[in-house]
Amino acid sequence: MEIERKFVPESLPADLSGYPALHLTQGYLCTDPVVRVRRENDAFCLTYKGSGMMAREEYNLPLTGEAFRHLLPKCDGRVIEKTRYLIPVEGRPDLTAELDVFSGELEGLVILEVEFASVEDAVSFTPPAWYGKDVTDDPSYHNSAISRGADPRKR
Amino acid sequence: MEIERKFVPESLPADLSGYPALHLTQGYLCTDPVVRVRRENDAFCLTYKGSGMMAREEYNLPLTGEAFRHLLPKCDGRVIEKTRYLIPVEGRPDLTAELDVFSGELEGLVILEVEFASVEDAVSFTPPAWYGKDVTDDPSYHNSAISRGADPRKR
Repeated sequence: MEIERKFVPESLPADLSGYPALHLTQGYLCTDPVVRVRRENDAFCLTYKGSGMMAREEYNLPLTGEAFRHLLPKCDGRVIEKTRYLIPVEGRPDLTAELDVFSGELEGLVILEVEFASVEDAVSFTPPAWYGKDVTDDPSYHNSAISRGADPRKR
Repeated sequence: MEIERKFVPESLPADLSGYPALHLTQGYLCTDPVVRVRRENDAFCLTYKGSGMMAREEYNLPLTGEAFRHLLPKCDGRVIEKTRYLIPVEGRPDLTAELDVFSGELEGLVILEVEFASVEDAVSFTPPAWYGKDVTDDPSYHNSAISRGADPRKR
């Protein structure tokens, strides 16, 4: 079960290139349940996330590069490309902010996510000012919605 | 890890309709690793089988009927339809023969499989005469090969 809060920063940290980064390319074969293919630097995987009606289980299963390239064109809507920076959360060594900077068609879109161990912790968390607007409850910021063609900035 | 032997019976048991049966419809999104969608009577699932190079793990993950119908047209090659009869193996209450009777384009194709707990048991097993030719080592009888268009009877 993922418990996370999602934000839209208006500006990026100045020292972005100093943080660990992952280059992600992903598409969705299905969104309910989620069946996603993803390239993460030089690793490839198929992810399944149980739908709302079922237990929200998540499995990450390895793919070869060839299998990834075979499955990607079968995905619906747009392929998402982004760089994910892993940024420590000040004063909370147990948390890491994932800052997704999109490229390609969605160049300029930036979404920040923090995952929590409990709902209580998520609710009581006070975000730094630079995290910007809280869009946790806005479904248009889900990656699966973005892949279906929605650009959440244009609503 | 699946350990199985595969046969091609020349005739079917006379009392076939007396055995438990599953109606299966399945297709392959990818064959290495295997990513398969399957309808089994009124249940739907996505199956992942790790490829030869990785551990041969198998996961069966639930799909909704809608997700199944969304994913089936993305499959490569032909969709396989068959009825699977579960037939006891005489003298071996621990084993069950799965007799797959294909329909549709592959009408008339029949394949029988028995799964074993160990390689030793698989090798020492003496099949009843009606199981017919042993095709365990013939890759053209793999479901993934059949889905790619091979009809093993026509080779």
